[in-house]
Amino acid sequence: MPHQPEKTVARNAGLIKALRDFLPPESVLDQREQLRPFECDGLSVYRQLPMVVVLPETIAQVQGIMRLCHAQDIPVVARGAGTGLSGGALPLANGVLLSLAKFRNILHIDPHNAMATVQPGVRNLAISEAAAAYGLYYAPDPSSQIACTIGGNVAENSGGVHCLKYGLTVHNILMLKVVTAEGELLTIGAETLDAPGYDLLALMTGSEGMLGIIVEVTVKLLARPERAQVVLAAFDDVVKAGEAVGAIIAAGIIPAGLEMMDRLAIQAAEDFVHAGYPRDAEAILLCELDGTNAEVSEYIMTMRRILTDSGATEVRTAVDEAERQLFWKGRKSAFPAVGRISPDYYCMDGTIPRRQLPHVLRRISEMSEEYGLAVANVFHAGDGNLHPLILFDANKEGELHRAEELGQGILQLCVEVGGTITGEHGVGMEKIDQMCIQFRSAELAQFHAVKAAFDPSGLLNPGKAVPTLQRCAEFGAMHVHHGKLSHPELERF
Amino acid sequence: MPHQPEKTVARNAGLIKALRDFLPPESVLDQREQLRPFECDGLSVYRQLPMVVVLPETIAQVQGIMRLCHAQDIPVVARGAGTGLSGGALPLANGVLLSLAKFRNILHIDPHNAMATVQPGVRNLAISEAAAAYGLYYAPDPSSQIACTIGGNVAENSGGVHCLKYGLTVHNILMLKVVTAEGELLTIGAETLDAPGYDLLALMTGSEGMLGIIVEVTVKLLARPERAQVVLAAFDDVVKAGEAVGAIIAAGIIPAGLEMMDRLAIQAAEDFVHAGYPRDAEAILLCELDGTNAEVSEYIMTMRRILTDSGATEVRTAVDEAERQLFWKGRKSAFPAVGRISPDYYCMDGTIPRRQLPHVLRRISEMSEEYGLAVANVFHAGDGNLHPLILFDANKEGELHRAEELGQGILQLCVEVGGTITGEHGVGMEKIDQMCIQFRSAELAQFHAVKAAFDPSGLLNPGKAVPTLQRCAEFGAMHVHHGKLSHPELERF
Repeated sequence: MPHQPEKTVARNAGLIKALRDFLPPESVLDQREQLRPFECDGLSVYRQLPMVVVLPETIAQVQGIMRLCHAQDIPVVARGAGTGLSGGALPLANGVLLSLAKFRNILHIDPHNAMATVQPGVRNLAISEAAAAYGLYYAPDPSSQIACTIGGNVAENSGGVHCLKYGLTVHNILMLKVVTAEGELLTIGAETLDAPGYDLLALMTGSEGMLGIIVEVTVKLLARPERAQVVLAAFDDVVKAGEAVGAIIAAGIIPAGLEMMDRLAIQAAEDFVHAGYPRDAEAILLCELDGTNAEVSEYIMTMRRILTDSGATEVRTAVDEAERQLFWKGRKSAFPAVGRISPDYYCMDGTIPRRQLPHVLRRISEMSEEYGLAVANVFHAGDGNLHPLILFDANKEGELHRAEELGQGILQLCVEVGGTITGEHGVGMEKIDQMCIQFRSAELAQFHAVKAAFDPSGLLNPGKAVPTLQRCAEFGAMHVHHGKLSHPELERF
Repeated sequence: MPHQPEKTVARNAGLIKALRDFLPPESVLDQREQLRPFECDGLSVYRQLPMVVVLPETIAQVQGIMRLCHAQDIPVVARGAGTGLSGGALPLANGVLLSLAKFRNILHIDPHNAMATVQPGVRNLAISEAAAAYGLYYAPDPSSQIACTIGGNVAENSGGVHCLKYGLTVHNILMLKVVTAEGELLTIGAETLDAPGYDLLALMTGSEGMLGIIVEVTVKLLARPERAQVVLAAFDDVVKAGEAVGAIIAAGIIPAGLEMMDRLAIQAAEDFVHAGYPRDAEAILLCELDGTNAEVSEYIMTMRRILTDSGATEVRTAVDEAERQLFWKGRKSAFPAVGRISPDYYCMDGTIPRRQLPHVLRRISEMSEEYGLAVANVFHAGDGNLHPLILFDANKEGELHRAEELGQGILQLCVEVGGTITGEHGVGMEKIDQMCIQFRSAELAQFHAVKAAFDPSGLLNPGKAVPTLQRCAEFGAMHVHHGKLSHPELERF
């Protein structure tokens, strides 16, 4: 989360005039007060005004913008709703910020084939709302699903509480229309289970705006399960809760959601929304089961037994739908709840193999003591996606720096145990240096080759997601000295 | 399925000597009788002896082979068990055939985390056999699963009867080790749900040996379901059976398998294995349900109702496990059963959106009459993956040619209704020209750019999977004249 000085916008009057030649006047913004709303995404420690914001309405306009920028060698950053948490949509001072906000139509819902074709600016939740008339829904549900858009979900390969059972974005989409860096329109994927040729659909998903501009998305829809129920289990020890997660999965149960909160998170959430959590527990697990009525009943019995055998001090099933919603409200409010008890917090996002949960939770607790900073753990336990929240006070000398160091230590731990530096928030600006820990130069070189296959001039979202080998060499050196990370120039690629 | 003349092997004594310098004597085969077993894969109409066969035993040896071939500009074709049905492992007369047959160790099974790390030459079924001790199995089950290897499964993104519910190979693997065209070793994917960087894991899966040599695979394992049961439904009309498939999926049921056979296939299978199929039915559906005992019971009731409402003339549930196995034995023996009633048959593989099933089945029946060739339909109805078997007699003047034309017409129909030219058999040699129907030049150009990002010299499996634009231009012209397709030189890429 290191800061960088904002750069002055380099106005390019010729480009702006050329954009106005084929875009309506309200689709080209270049006044400072118009640019302000686009200066950052959800990771607001990074801020930069773009040179110009464009809001195209048609695929042809997107192609026109890309052709123009390609001809004039102007970098382009695409943006959905800007809810991303890793600075992936941070604009460039000398670049175009291309917002897909006007692409907000649901083009077609095909209930018979359980799929929907939508524009990228459609909100995640709006798809499920529109599909509800047919008893269908779109499964991936990031916490920001009220606001975030499907185009951004594809760019980040978003997950959510239900991705343990229903998969990430990449497992729930069928086709994409993509405009390339040179303005070419590609149709990738197929309405069927598999498409011939290289899997460009998966390659594009999670590519963080580096390979193309997503202009249309065909998603899979699922039938709403007949019943959903949640089991809450309390533990007097975080490590026991971590072991229970392993026992559930080992028993062959794939819950629709399997979330964990530790004492600090439980108390913060309980004080905030009064979810009825046991305040004295060291950890709770929330295990959602969905399916047919009979199936859910059967799984609840098995689940209760496993939780009790794993040493749970209390196992409760929501008495009714209202209580089920309340249990989830506590979980979903955990981040703002922690925000109420600490002046600042730094939300981490890393994944680990499930079997490492007990070890990693123990280590985070030790590191928290070493650094003298509290850490609240709220996370997708079932898929090993951690969200440690590091509590600090930016107004206290050195605390931000210590929080950054602790955060980096946690990510390094994730990599050491066989995990990754990001689960669902992406690399963006935030974790570009940590990519140097995650990958060796051979893999990074292959990433750059793939990037060049789509965007040889490096105009799409330069400086994000994949570090240059040079950058990693510098980072490595700095890392050795435990110095604070600097963010030199945004390099191309 | 057009034939091509076999080329004379161009022996390169210098290369063979250099290979022998670092490989054991029994790992370098260059005698004609030694090369013979490698001259074709499961699509035996294409045959070509390679210049030399190498059988490395270690990753370092594979790297050495690739470095040597890269330095000397020698093309390399990788091969698993050679059960592929599209000629993807066809050798080159001037190339190295790299067999992974000696990579046959299961390296590690991790029951707690439900994963296994295996060498690419391990047979698909052997993974499930080894995992059975922990109540686990590997889900994708191509018909050839007794013989085919996991490395080949990854290269082809293989499916199987259960992929409707459990996904293709790409959905069931976590990590790969891959040796690049230049001999570099890459580790891609992660033990966790998602990895940062571009999704090279999915990109490599189904890339038909064009992007790298797979030398290690980490797969996901699943818990064996408590119960599996199969429902057999008979119909007096193929189209009604196709409509029933749509009704099942629309009801939100995802069967573990949903297979369809038409009259010709039913009778051939029944005569062969006496599965107890209704011989007078126009079509049967086999619907497998798995899960907990309660869940399966509930779904069977729903399924019976849907099938009856869809006009099934008979709905039967297997009375015991022996009958369930027998129902499946009939399905799995359908290809050889058809082989018993016709001197030759041509197995097609295309996919269509499920809603198109009734229309496509009707059109195939009409085309069968037009061409005067019987077509038996045996296929994965649930995921729209068709396997029409065109019956012909190669000894009758013109029948092979008519079979080829009919096959091409069926694939073109698949593309026209929004489907693809291959479901699970890959493109290989067989369908390289049909790729020109499936994709526009923009997408093909992007495929070539991706290929060049991994293999700029075009040494890995040249001439397969993705046609050159030049080839498509020639194919297009020939297609207009309804001439028999010629297969000019194997081009690079």
